[in-house]
Amino acid sequence: MAPRSQGYKLKIEVWLKEGLVDAEGKTLEEALVDLGFPIESAKAGRVYEIILNVESREEAGEEAERMCDKLLANPVKDRCVVDIIE
Amino acid sequence: MAPRSQGYKLKIEVWLKEGLVDAEGKTLEEALVDLGFPIESAKAGRVYEIILNVESREEAGEEAERMCDKLLANPVKDRCVVDIIE
Repeated sequence: MAPRSQGYKLKIEVWLKEGLVDAEGKTLEEALVDLGFPIESAKAGRVYEIILNVESREEAGEEAERMCDKLLANPVKDRCVVDIIE
Repeated sequence: MAPRSQGYKLKIEVWLKEGLVDAEGKTLEEALVDLGFPIESAKAGRVYEIILNVESREEAGEEAERMCDKLLANPVKDRCVVDIIE
């Protein structure tokens, strides 16, 4: 793929791994139920929108995985979901 | 649309409004640059995955807007992005 001067825009979500207690999501769920919303479940996570100056979509994906491992997520408890949006 | 026993799954992102200082995003951006990543910019937000027991997609969207106004976001500084994913 050709180099792009404007970079690649990524969306990276960081969620707790399945099976771990999502205290923030649970609290939110209870608060929403108390407010009368018909909630079945709620999970909470973080989201990052990052613009990367790389030459290809493939490289953008690789850098995203490295950013997750090095800084954005704790590999013991978190899972990252990477989406290259443009 | 027919009622669905399993509910609607929503993803709701909460971002700071444009023009406000995103301190967490800025800190992240600097940390990623320090680690050698080719970052142009980084923004930070929160993401929620919520399952709602409602009868229609339209109702799911309306409840999501109300949840944003009442609890998930501060309308003065935040903007919500709602996506009905299934």
